[in-house]
Amino acid sequence: MLTSLINRKVASSVARVASSITEHGAHHLRSFHIERRIKELEIDLPTAPLPKANYNIVCMSGDTLYVSGHLPIKGDGTLITGAVGPDDAGLTVEAGNEAARHCGLNIVSTLKEQLGDLDRVEQVVKIFGIVNSQANFKHQHLVMDGCSDLIMEIFGKPIGYHARSAIGVNTLPLNATVEVEAIIKIKPE
Amino acid sequence: MLTSLINRKVASSVARVASSITEHGAHHLRSFHIERRIKELEIDLPTAPLPKANYNIVCMSGDTLYVSGHLPIKGDGTLITGAVGPDDAGLTVEAGNEAARHCGLNIVSTLKEQLGDLDRVEQVVKIFGIVNSQANFKHQHLVMDGCSDLIMEIFGKPIGYHARSAIGVNTLPLNATVEVEAIIKIKPE
Amino acid sequence: MLTSLINRKVASSVARVASSITEHGAHHLRSFHIERRIKELEIDLPTAPLPKANYNIVCMSGDTLYVSGHLPIKGDGTLITGAVGPDDAGLTVEAGNEAARHCGLNIVSTLKEQLGDLDRVEQVVKIFGIVNSQANFKHQHLVMDGCSDLIMEIFGKPIGYHARSAIGVNTLPLNATVEVEAIIKIKPE
Repeated sequence: MLTSLINRKVASSVARVASSITEHGAHHLRSFHIERRIKELEIDLPTAPLPKANYNIVCMSGDTLYVSGHLPIKGDGTLITGAVGPDDAGLTVEAGNEAARHCGLNIVSTLKEQLGDLDRVEQVVKIFGIVNSQANFKHQHLVMDGCSDLIMEIFGKPIGYHARSAIGVNTLPLNATVEVEAIIKIKPE
Repeated sequence: MLTSLINRKVASSVARVASSITEHGAHHLRSFHIERRIKELEIDLPTAPLPKANYNIVCMSGDTLYVSGHLPIKGDGTLITGAVGPDDAGLTVEAGNEAARHCGLNIVSTLKEQLGDLDRVEQVVKIFGIVNSQANFKHQHLVMDGCSDLIMEIFGKPIGYHARSAIGVNTLPLNATVEVEAIIKIKPE
Repeated sequence: MLTSLINRKVASSVARVASSITEHGAHHLRSFHIERRIKELEIDLPTAPLPKANYNIVCMSGDTLYVSGHLPIKGDGTLITGAVGPDDAGLTVEAGNEAARHCGLNIVSTLKEQLGDLDRVEQVVKIFGIVNSQANFKHQHLVMDGCSDLIMEIFGKPIGYHARSAIGVNTLPLNATVEVEAIIKIKPE
């Protein structure tokens, strides 16, 4: 249901893009393609996290942007915390998946802040997701789907179709539920 | 014993390669060098894992292939599971080492599937190994040698001589014993 | 206090560099800039760790140097061990921070050994820090500041201003307190 809704929205977006090429020219248009899709999907990006004192939120090397580990900070500024797991006090897979999606939203917000224009993303190359997990929780991949799905909703194939690793750990900074870092290939300006 | 066996096999492989250059020409030959070595070492590659729904098993960026986290799936399709460790129910270092070798076999199989020809590997740049570990197990490096040794048997120096990190974690997706991701530099086609 | 001391030292270093450009020429000078700063900061580099049997301490791919996971080995050859955490037998945040600094020192020593000249570092692109942690320890970022601060003291902005991820794990090879790997962009020779 959701997928078909998304497909419909994307299709309508593509149609509008096509029709407006004549009006505004391809270059001007390209500059708002991804951000328009984000709007049509009704995705709200949180405020981009700030660079830290002695390390940066991203670092560029040639055409590759390395994105520091991002935590699941919600739009209201609160952090999603706690380990995922089947035992008492463990978050559900669904809650973990939602946290991973928020990591992705923060990464996209950082990309927008750093690049100015999300259409400068040539390829989401790789994401690495670390899931705060109780030792008997074994579905870190289902948690990380929350981030991968978001990336694909926003960037689609082939731009968003990334390599990925997902692991579990016993703890994370500030008790965050998930941390995600990324490697992004950028188009030349 | 094993090493001298391998050396002998490699030496004989090199000799045959050298003698056949005149017959078929260097280019045609190069295309089967690594795969011939795999055959001579009597290494069976498992079926390459499939790309997933919303992420890919690899992603190319320029001349660099990022390989997603690979699990120790055996030739018969079963996954090696469980934490390595000294306590009851913990796998031995040897069993962990064997699991890491299987991660490597799966990665090589993916490379063959993606590149068509393993001779297109210019350099195995980096592997990162995550070992499902009981908290008092401290020899993740000996586990990961199972993967490093395989890479070196197949690709040799300098192509196979990679950077590496090895860490322990309290849990992994599907309770896999080891997960390995890789960065590979590819020759231009 | 420490910061102002460092700033003073760096300022005096920069002044001397500026004054000697006329004497020796920019090229000769550049070759000792970073190492002079290390001396002025009274930082002692440990012996660089050796390459291992079947993997290397670094691997170059194009202009990018991938640095294998480095452990906190002190100048006297001993390894800093144990998990950081609030419980009995847990190391303090300060001890963890010091361990992360030692990981950084070992990485810088490896860079000097591999590159000959630390001025060949164009950019410290990314560091990834894994902190041996009790499950209820949640300040891996404060531990990893020990490494980030060292990198910034030595290389400054923009060269040392890196992307970073920090995570906790239940165990590490040889019970090391911290492990850090790095990605470094190198200037052409």
